[in-house]
Amino acid sequence: MVSGRLLLSVAVLILCGCQGAHSGNVLVFPGEFSHWLNMRVILEKLVERNHSVTVLICSASPSVNYTKPEGFSFKVYNVPFERHDLESLQEDFLNFWMYEAQNASMLQVGLKIRDVLGRMTALQLNMCDAMFHNEELMHTLRQWKFDAVLSDPMMPCNQMSFFERVHNFVMYMMHSSLFYIHCLVTMDKYYSGIKGRPTTFCEILGKADIWLIRTYWDFEYPRPFLPNFKFVGGLHCKPAKPLSEAMEEFVQSSGDDGIVVFSLGSMIKNLTKERGNTIATALGQIPQKVLWRYSGEKPETLAPNTRVYDWIPQNDLLGHPKTKAFVTHGGTNGLYESIYHGVPMVGIPLFADQPDNISHMKNKGAAVMVDFNKMTSKDLVDGLNSVINDPSYKESMMRLSRIHHDQPMKPLDTAVFWIEFVMRNKGAKHLRVEAHNLSWYQYHCLDVAAALLAIVALVIVVSIKTCIFCFRKCCKKAKARQKTE
Amino acid sequence: MVSGRLLLSVAVLILCGCQGAHSGNVLVFPGEFSHWLNMRVILEKLVERNHSVTVLICSASPSVNYTKPEGFSFKVYNVPFERHDLESLQEDFLNFWMYEAQNASMLQVGLKIRDVLGRMTALQLNMCDAMFHNEELMHTLRQWKFDAVLSDPMMPCNQMSFFERVHNFVMYMMHSSLFYIHCLVTMDKYYSGIKGRPTTFCEILGKADIWLIRTYWDFEYPRPFLPNFKFVGGLHCKPAKPLSEAMEEFVQSSGDDGIVVFSLGSMIKNLTKERGNTIATALGQIPQKVLWRYSGEKPETLAPNTRVYDWIPQNDLLGHPKTKAFVTHGGTNGLYESIYHGVPMVGIPLFADQPDNISHMKNKGAAVMVDFNKMTSKDLVDGLNSVINDPSYKESMMRLSRIHHDQPMKPLDTAVFWIEFVMRNKGAKHLRVEAHNLSWYQYHCLDVAAALLAIVALVIVVSIKTCIFCFRKCCKKAKARQKTE
Repeated sequence: MVSGRLLLSVAVLILCGCQGAHSGNVLVFPGEFSHWLNMRVILEKLVERNHSVTVLICSASPSVNYTKPEGFSFKVYNVPFERHDLESLQEDFLNFWMYEAQNASMLQVGLKIRDVLGRMTALQLNMCDAMFHNEELMHTLRQWKFDAVLSDPMMPCNQMSFFERVHNFVMYMMHSSLFYIHCLVTMDKYYSGIKGRPTTFCEILGKADIWLIRTYWDFEYPRPFLPNFKFVGGLHCKPAKPLSEAMEEFVQSSGDDGIVVFSLGSMIKNLTKERGNTIATALGQIPQKVLWRYSGEKPETLAPNTRVYDWIPQNDLLGHPKTKAFVTHGGTNGLYESIYHGVPMVGIPLFADQPDNISHMKNKGAAVMVDFNKMTSKDLVDGLNSVINDPSYKESMMRLSRIHHDQPMKPLDTAVFWIEFVMRNKGAKHLRVEAHNLSWYQYHCLDVAAALLAIVALVIVVSIKTCIFCFRKCCKKAKARQKTE
Repeated sequence: MVSGRLLLSVAVLILCGCQGAHSGNVLVFPGEFSHWLNMRVILEKLVERNHSVTVLICSASPSVNYTKPEGFSFKVYNVPFERHDLESLQEDFLNFWMYEAQNASMLQVGLKIRDVLGRMTALQLNMCDAMFHNEELMHTLRQWKFDAVLSDPMMPCNQMSFFERVHNFVMYMMHSSLFYIHCLVTMDKYYSGIKGRPTTFCEILGKADIWLIRTYWDFEYPRPFLPNFKFVGGLHCKPAKPLSEAMEEFVQSSGDDGIVVFSLGSMIKNLTKERGNTIATALGQIPQKVLWRYSGEKPETLAPNTRVYDWIPQNDLLGHPKTKAFVTHGGTNGLYESIYHGVPMVGIPLFADQPDNISHMKNKGAAVMVDFNKMTSKDLVDGLNSVINDPSYKESMMRLSRIHHDQPMKPLDTAVFWIEFVMRNKGAKHLRVEAHNLSWYQYHCLDVAAALLAIVALVIVVSIKTCIFCFRKCCKKAKARQKTE
C-alpha cells in the first residue's frame, strides 16, 4: 500500500533568476543533511565550470561545515541559537518517531507533530529574522543575482484498490489542510511582514523559475508535471572508486556469497540496545559478509561476519561487484545510489518520506520493506534472503537502473544546464504556468460554472414565471367567460 | 483572444513499442501534408543512424510520393478510392472554410463540419478496412516491431479575462462533447470490431509509449503535461542554405528595405480573383521586395516589387539576413521556421489550428493577425508595417528564438533518442500514467467522494433518528406521567 507523502520530507532545489544578468555569480541557500550532500555535488560542478558560488549559511548549521575550505565560499550569518538546539530538536523528533510513535494514539502523534512543527517553525523564523534584519548581510545579498531555496512538495499515488484510494484521498485532504493551516498561521504572516504587503508562502514559492526535483521516473509514479520541473534524481551518483585495502580484503573474504551493505543514514547515530541486538542477531544468520555503518554502542550479539564502521564509502560499496543487497532507511540519496548500481534493497524506513520511498521501490519489485519497531531478527533475515536469492528483485532493480542510465542527459548535466539557463536568460518565465496567477475558484473554473449555472437558472425561472403568468391569465379569462355565461 | 484548439488539426507522432526487441526495424504510419514533411525529417535521421525504416502508405496518399526512391522503403496497400477523392474532399472543405464559413450561421458551419467529418471518417474507415482485411499485409506487419501513428490532441489556454474564460470553457466543453460523440458513434465501434472486444479510440491511443509533440515552450503556453510527452517542435528547421543565383539577386536588389516572404502553405493552390488582387495591391504598397509562393492565376494588380513562385525554399529565405517579415497562414512548420530564424510574422490563418497558432504568436508579441476574408489591402499593409517597423515584434520573436535554441538537446535528437529508447527498452511503460487505467469517476475521485458522503449522510441520519426516537420516548413518558397525575 502506498501512503501519501509526508510534508516534512521531500525537498527540491528551487532556482530563481532575480535581477540577474549573464553573470556566473551563484548564491545558495542550502538544505541540511542529505540535501546538503546533494547540493554540494551541483556546487562543485558549477565551480568546475568557472562560476563563482557563495553559500549563505547560518552559524548553527548542523551539517554544513563552513570552516573547511571548499571551491565555493561561505557567507555565515549569526543566529541566536546553537547547532546543539537544532540537533536536540531533531533527536527528540527522531526518538519519538522511531520508538514511541508506533504505540502512540493518532492524537498523541498529531500533538507531537504539532509540537515539533511549532518549535521547528520558531527556529526557522528566528533564522529568517537573523537574515532579514541583518543590514550588512542584506546589503551584500542585493549585489547577488541568483537564489536557490529548499522546499517541500507533495503528491498523490497510483494503482490502488478502492479502500487504498479512500485512505489516500483522506490522507491527502488531511495533509493539505494541515499544511494550509500551518502556512496560514505562521509562514504567510511572516512573509507578509517581511514583504510589507499581504502575501503567502505559496506565492513566494511560486515565483521560482526552475524546480530541480531530486527524483526521476525510475522512482516516481508517472504523473503530470509542470514544464519548469526538471528531474535530476541521482545527480550525486558516480561509478565506484576502489575501496581501502583493508575493506577490499574483508569484501573479498566473502567469496561467492558476496556482501550486504547496511546503513540507516547519517541522522541515526544510536539505536536502543534491544533494536541493535535484533539487527546484529539477524545479520549473523546470513552467509554474506556485512558492512554496517553504525556509530552507536556495539551490540553484544554482533557476529563475526559483520563489521561495524563509523562511516562507509557507500557509493563505492554499492558499486562493488560483490554487493548483493543494501539495507537502508530509504533516504533519497542512498536509494538513488542503489538504483544507479542496480542493488536490490531491504528497506527499514524510519520517518518522513522514507516509508513512501520504500513503498515505491517495493511496488516496483526492487525492495522488501521491514518495520523498524516491530521487526524480529527473523523478519530481517527473511527480507535479506528474499532480495538476495529471489532473482526477481535483482531483475526489477536492473530494470530501474536501465531506465535511470537511459536518459538523454546525465542528471547533474541537466541540473547545471537549467541553472545556467536561468543565468543566461534572467529566469525562465516561459515555463511558468498561468495557474500561479489564478485564484482557487478561477483555477477550478468555479466562477465560470457559477455564472453559467446562474444563467441557466435565470432562464428556467423566467420561463416558469412566464408560463404561470400566461396560464393564470387564461384561467381568469375562462372563469370570466364562465361567469358571463 | 485565444480560441480552443480545433480537433482536426494538431497532430503528434505517437510511438509504440510493440513486441519489439533491440532491433532497428521501424514501421511508420505517416500523416499527410505538413505532417509528412515533419515525419520525413525524422525518418531521414533514423536511416542515417542505420535503422531500417518502412513507411506504410495507402495507394491514394495525396502528399506522400511513394514512387520516388528514398533512404527508407514504402509498403503500399491499395484502397478502393483515388487520390483525387481525398483531394476533392479537402478542397471542398478549404473553400467552405476560407470563403463561406465567415458568412454562414453557427448551424451551417456545424452541419458542414459534420458532413466533412462524416465523409472523412468514411474514407478513413475504408482505409482501415483495406489494411486490416488485407491478409498479406497483416502477415507482413506482424513481423515488424514498432508503430508510429498520427493523432490529434486538444488543450485549453491561458491568461484570459472572465468572459474569455467563459467562452473557452463553453468551447472546450463543446469540442470535448463533439469529439466524444464522434468517437463513440464511429471510431469506438470500428476499433471494437477489429479487436473483437469492446474498446475505445482513447484506449487504443492511450497505449502509446511516447508522444512526440510537434511544439515546444517557445510556442506553447506553460501547462502540466505527462512524462511520456516529448516536445520536438521545430525538428525540421536547419540553418539557411544559399539561394539560387536569380533569387539571391532579387533579394539583394531590395537594399536596406529587405524582403518579405509570403506563403499560405502547400494546401492553398488558388485564391479568388478578388482576394488575390487585395493581397497583390497591399504587397505593392510596401518598400520591401516580396517573394510570394502562389501557384494560382497571377493577380492583375501585381506590383513590380512582388515576384510569384510556384515553390520557394522557405527555410533558406527565412534564414536570409535581408528577411524582415513572414506572411503566413500559421501552419506549425512555417511557424517554427520563423521562430528558428527569428522573423516576425503577419498571420492570415485559414482553418484548423492556424487561428490558434497565430493567436499564440500574437499574444507573445511576435505577430500581427489579419482576417483572410475581411481584410482590405490597408489591413495587410498596416500589419506588415507594424511588424517591420515596430522593433517590439522583432525583439519578441528573438526572445522566442533564444528559448527555442537554448534547449539541452536539439528537437530532432530528442525525437531520435526517444524512438531509439522505445526500441532498446521494448516500450516506455515507466512513463505511462496510471490514469489511463482509471474510469472517469475514479479519475475524478467521485467514487471515493460518494462513499465518504454516504458515510457522513448515514451518520447524520442515524443520529437524527436516534434523537427523534429518544425525544419521542421522553415525550410519551411525560404524557403518560401527566395522564396518571
